Amino acid sequence: MNDIPTGTSCPLPISRYENILLAHGGGGRLMHRLLEEIFLPAFDNPALAARHDGAQLNLGGEQLAFTTDAYVVRPLFFPGGDIGTLAINGTLNDLAMCGARPVALSAAFILEEGLPVDTLRRVVQSMRQAAAAAGVPLVTGDTKVVDRGRADGLYITTTGLGRIPAGVRIGPDRIQPGDHLLINGDVGRHGVAIMAVREGLGFETSITSDCAPLVNPVFRLIENGVQVRCLRDLTRGGLASALVELAETTGLDLLVDESAVPVSEEVQGACEILGLDPLHVANEGRFLAVVAPGDSDRALELLREAAPDLPAARIGEVRGPGQGRVTLRSRIGAPRILDMFSGEQLPRIC
Amino acid sequence: MNDIPTGTSCPLPISRYENILLAHGGGGRLMHRLLEEIFLPAFDNPALAARHDGAQLNLGGEQLAFTTDAYVVRPLFFPGGDIGTLAINGTLNDLAMCGARPVALSAAFILEEGLPVDTLRRVVQSMRQAAAAAGVPLVTGDTKVVDRGRADGLYITTTGLGRIPAGVRIGPDRIQPGDHLLINGDVGRHGVAIMAVREGLGFETSITSDCAPLVNPVFRLIENGVQVRCLRDLTRGGLASALVELAETTGLDLLVDESAVPVSEEVQGACEILGLDPLHVANEGRFLAVVAPGDSDRALELLREAAPDLPAARIGEVRGPGQGRVTLRSRIGAPRILDMFSGEQLPRIC
Repeated sequence: MNDIPTGTSCPLPISRYENILLAHGGGGRLMHRLLEEIFLPAFDNPALAARHDGAQLNLGGEQLAFTTDAYVVRPLFFPGGDIGTLAINGTLNDLAMCGARPVALSAAFILEEGLPVDTLRRVVQSMRQAAAAAGVPLVTGDTKVVDRGRADGLYITTTGLGRIPAGVRIGPDRIQPGDHLLINGDVGRHGVAIMAVREGLGFETSITSDCAPLVNPVFRLIENGVQVRCLRDLTRGGLASALVELAETTGLDLLVDESAVPVSEEVQGACEILGLDPLHVANEGRFLAVVAPGDSDRALELLREAAPDLPAARIGEVRGPGQGRVTLRSRIGAPRILDMFSGEQLPRIC
Repeated sequence: MNDIPTGTSCPLPISRYENILLAHGGGGRLMHRLLEEIFLPAFDNPALAARHDGAQLNLGGEQLAFTTDAYVVRPLFFPGGDIGTLAINGTLNDLAMCGARPVALSAAFILEEGLPVDTLRRVVQSMRQAAAAAGVPLVTGDTKVVDRGRADGLYITTTGLGRIPAGVRIGPDRIQPGDHLLINGDVGRHGVAIMAVREGLGFETSITSDCAPLVNPVFRLIENGVQVRCLRDLTRGGLASALVELAETTGLDLLVDESAVPVSEEVQGACEILGLDPLHVANEGRFLAVVAPGDSDRALELLREAAPDLPAARIGEVRGPGQGRVTLRSRIGAPRILDMFSGEQLPRIC
């Protein structure tokens, strides 16, 4: 009962598993099962049920976004970043995906006994730089130490609080048939960068993680009047999980042109060697924007102005009424239905 | 350089340690060094510098409290609670210590591969019950899974957001000479209950953890007009750490009557066998309230009404101008200066 399921569909309910698998944390089908069967029923409330990257709260007439993420990436340092940059940018990005401007961050550290103090210092320095670059203060925190062998160096949980400007309403419920699907750059860099340095893979490239803050590109769209319906960062489970989740949440169909999804030659090559599909590989600086069709050209221009080096692209559109499915059109062959992975191609990616 | 320092004072700066020790997470002197030398300089800002149980933020004219804690208690289940009750009550209590009514909670889980799904279910059920009892929704969360042997079953980080009612100002900066020091019940239960079940101690009692939510007793004081200057829950490091921290932060002296500190006979007996001082043992449902001297009798009445089974007591007073020290008067012998422990008598207590 406890083998990791293969393939892209996973019909087993959580009750059929006796023990937690790595795949339960992979951002794919199995993690969704865990949420649906254990967490959502226990903590049932409208904010949680909205299935956003963060909760939306109304406090004193202000709309706030509130989001949390645990970071357990292995190794702690990787090309293009480390667990510290990830822990700050990842949580800032979850706020941005709610259309919120970050206001404050908290950080809780779980340190393993024996962790070099110098490693902690380097990670904290990365966090300081990432928070300062975004102009967001880290206002509260906690530190626990667990016995040697009871963590993997250190784990960090950051929580973010943001303010959603008046009039901004972003969420899956805003998506309409005809909307366009945009992406702010090429996919797969973070996952491939991690795999390249992870011991045992015997594989090295010059690919660096795309780990980056997304607040600026998001607000460039919003403040220039683009009708942004919904935003998703493409972390665990990659572009595929984000698309499938949106299709299933809305019940609409998403039609995606596979050849329009930007993948660098380097990443494509690495994925071929490793037997991975770039659509399922994690990113830490890429997002999907669902926008009104009339705003799509302008939105692409704005994304390209915000990051001239990134190949922002329109990758598809929303069709409806539908069956909540993602259809992938490729240059050759028949269209195929895209599903999320069961677990994750490689665990501990973020 | 990496031996755990003994005694109650620790003159070594963090730079003299090459590696993180369990004692760096114990709530005592060494943990304070870590905060002062690594975290506070990196994330310097007024909210963090206030050294409260949570940060205070002004958002849209409302005063909010924001607090986070990682829970790594071993064992996961103990007499009187489990990691789930602890993770909810502990964070609600940190909000209460800021004078805030909890509004929302988040939870981030780090699960170890191989954790029985049933264990997770029981912990989540405890969290559900504790959150429901407090009427506070858990609105957002995250789940990560780490490889077998890279956690200790599960770790939970909860973050809380609360609203501080208009006119409520609670913090160390409010403490004045002459203020009274109150405690809402007897100390040492949580730590002793954990020790009793922890393998290897070969010691069992009927003592259960005092793990409990503190929002109601705190607001009973506030809403009945007691001038509450400052509140501290007595978790890691126990009553001793809380007192020393307040004395050092304010620069005022605290005079404590040791015989007035309530300790049950059971806890006293267990502490004698284990060679512990109840003043240093962790609690999860006890707090120190610094109140205006004229309100002290009324406050004690209110605390006793809120929890008739607990021996709420006045344990001392604030003296000043002072030297930021805690003096303990005992029935016999000369007064002695109280210091916090270097680390913690037993790690992984919360």
